[in-house]
Amino acid sequence: MSTTSTNRRIVLASRPSGEPGPDNFRIEDVPLPQAGPGEVLLRNRFLSLDPYMRGRMDDARSYSPPIGIGEVMEGRTVAEVLESHHPDLAPGDWVFAPLGGWQTHAVADGASLTRRLDPQDALPPSTALGVYGMPGFTAYAGLHEIGKPQPGETLVVAAASGPVGATVAQLAKRQGLRVVAIAGGPEKVRYLREELGVDAALDHRADDFAGQLRAAVPDGIDIYFENVGGKVFDAVLPLLNDFARIPVCGTIATYNRRGELPPGPDRTPALLSQILRQRLTVRGFIQRDFIRLYPEFLREMGHWLREGTIRYREHVIDGLEHAPQALVELLRGGNFGKVVVRIDPWPRKRVHP
Amino acid sequence: MSTTSTNRRIVLASRPSGEPGPDNFRIEDVPLPQAGPGEVLLRNRFLSLDPYMRGRMDDARSYSPPIGIGEVMEGRTVAEVLESHHPDLAPGDWVFAPLGGWQTHAVADGASLTRRLDPQDALPPSTALGVYGMPGFTAYAGLHEIGKPQPGETLVVAAASGPVGATVAQLAKRQGLRVVAIAGGPEKVRYLREELGVDAALDHRADDFAGQLRAAVPDGIDIYFENVGGKVFDAVLPLLNDFARIPVCGTIATYNRRGELPPGPDRTPALLSQILRQRLTVRGFIQRDFIRLYPEFLREMGHWLREGTIRYREHVIDGLEHAPQALVELLRGGNFGKVVVRIDPWPRKRVHP
Repeated sequence: MSTTSTNRRIVLASRPSGEPGPDNFRIEDVPLPQAGPGEVLLRNRFLSLDPYMRGRMDDARSYSPPIGIGEVMEGRTVAEVLESHHPDLAPGDWVFAPLGGWQTHAVADGASLTRRLDPQDALPPSTALGVYGMPGFTAYAGLHEIGKPQPGETLVVAAASGPVGATVAQLAKRQGLRVVAIAGGPEKVRYLREELGVDAALDHRADDFAGQLRAAVPDGIDIYFENVGGKVFDAVLPLLNDFARIPVCGTIATYNRRGELPPGPDRTPALLSQILRQRLTVRGFIQRDFIRLYPEFLREMGHWLREGTIRYREHVIDGLEHAPQALVELLRGGNFGKVVVRIDPWPRKRVHP
Repeated sequence: MSTTSTNRRIVLASRPSGEPGPDNFRIEDVPLPQAGPGEVLLRNRFLSLDPYMRGRMDDARSYSPPIGIGEVMEGRTVAEVLESHHPDLAPGDWVFAPLGGWQTHAVADGASLTRRLDPQDALPPSTALGVYGMPGFTAYAGLHEIGKPQPGETLVVAAASGPVGATVAQLAKRQGLRVVAIAGGPEKVRYLREELGVDAALDHRADDFAGQLRAAVPDGIDIYFENVGGKVFDAVLPLLNDFARIPVCGTIATYNRRGELPPGPDRTPALLSQILRQRLTVRGFIQRDFIRLYPEFLREMGHWLREGTIRYREHVIDGLEHAPQALVELLRGGNFGKVVVRIDPWPRKRVHP
């Protein structure tokens, strides 16, 4: 049982091959960490779960080093300051903690906690993990810096009920684009159509998905915001217009099969040839590559969210111990909206037994 | 026999599957075309042969429409004005003719002939088809606009004894990059090393080519100027640095196998994943996408060529009737330098019987 003198945390127990399972995680109760000079002791309130975490569980080269075996699972949190040895922070302050981790408590360098949150704000603090945080910023930066949207153009985005896709779709609509949004299942598709106001909403599970996509883009595709890969990418390729831009921020469809490739033929030469003939731009990015835009994002997005012209949806999981299964579901597309784990109050009655 | 009242021309007789052969071309002698108002009658002196021509022979979607069966093979020429109905041009003027074609004579709109050439210039007029024309401009524009070279970075370019590759290599050296140049065969490799002054010159036919490339780029690859595809691309991929740029201006290794793909697995998902993880930019282009830079190119490159700091090599073919075989050789990498067909004097003694 966890007490206030205990930090409950989830560590990486082993590396998954394919889809992660319970054996890859371990729950530990350890003594509370001690905050040293300049540091603060945090109580995590909300933990963000994101597709990129699957990559960190592999021992593979990526934009960040892998999580070590036995180390706390990495994750962004919204946290409350319990104890402060930093002049700018006081107990009771709420902050965004970039390295809060999958745990109830954390010690952080006070200087790293530059974003304060107001728990009484009309915009709930958990949004700092989603639409008003890194996923929203991923959408904002990738769309503007790589997508370079022009009014009248057509944009396609998948995983569109998730925090990145939904934000891309809405930002593109704001800019006067025709937006085709893709998700899995009728409930999500209805949400896209009715709540986000996109021009067309498609279910990638439909048998004739490729045909539906073709019908939905009578003028071709100018921007494909790539966050899934797989069959959506395949369906998009023949519909791209010359000079189309493909910001690549994720390929979630392939995250659970690192190293395993689909059967041939090898279409790489055809892709290169198409990139040449159509003068496509395919560019990978992560949000921190564009961090100089973050203040502008906070200002603009804060305004749009408060006035209600950008909408968002959260999928809240109660209880840290459910985080592993929630990540598995997320990678399967089982979430509906931004997945946040509500850690507090802790210990609490479990909602999912 | 060709006379001055006859236009000898080479037309596309049929579409090749794979490598073009003699049956795909037909030589015709037809009456001289008549120049109408605003037009000029041209006598072509030099014809440019370029890899892109293979694509035009296919009936496939590309950045330009295919050549029709029975139509004159498309090609850029350097030509002399025989007869002018345009106020800015007079008989005896030499011009660059974008649509001169595989023929001894052509009629062109005088307004399309904006580039005058001086046959007495120290820089021979045929260079307007190579280093001082579209191939050179392809190198210049792609390197600067997509490659965005920074001093100290490492650039790799293949087909480096050809007009695009050789120019890329030399421009990058000028800018303080480490340049690794790739070509096929010891003679070309010696040329790269001794004449162009690159940091490393590699033969892609070597058994341990991939290992040699790895050894030649101790700091990884920041720019891969893609003009060949195939195994060079494969060898480059694992050596790319984060944020590397890949301007794609050609994939000559695959031109003769349009539609035919190599056996599996399908590496496309791995490529997308690498583009994301390493935040690569892969962007196709053709030189006319950057035509706004052309005046600057002419000014700068003219200066460098005249002062001898940018070097070039021409591979001259004598006689229009040898153009088909010369194109086949070019696609096999059998040329050594920019391929130009010297049409004039016509008729003349054949050098290659």
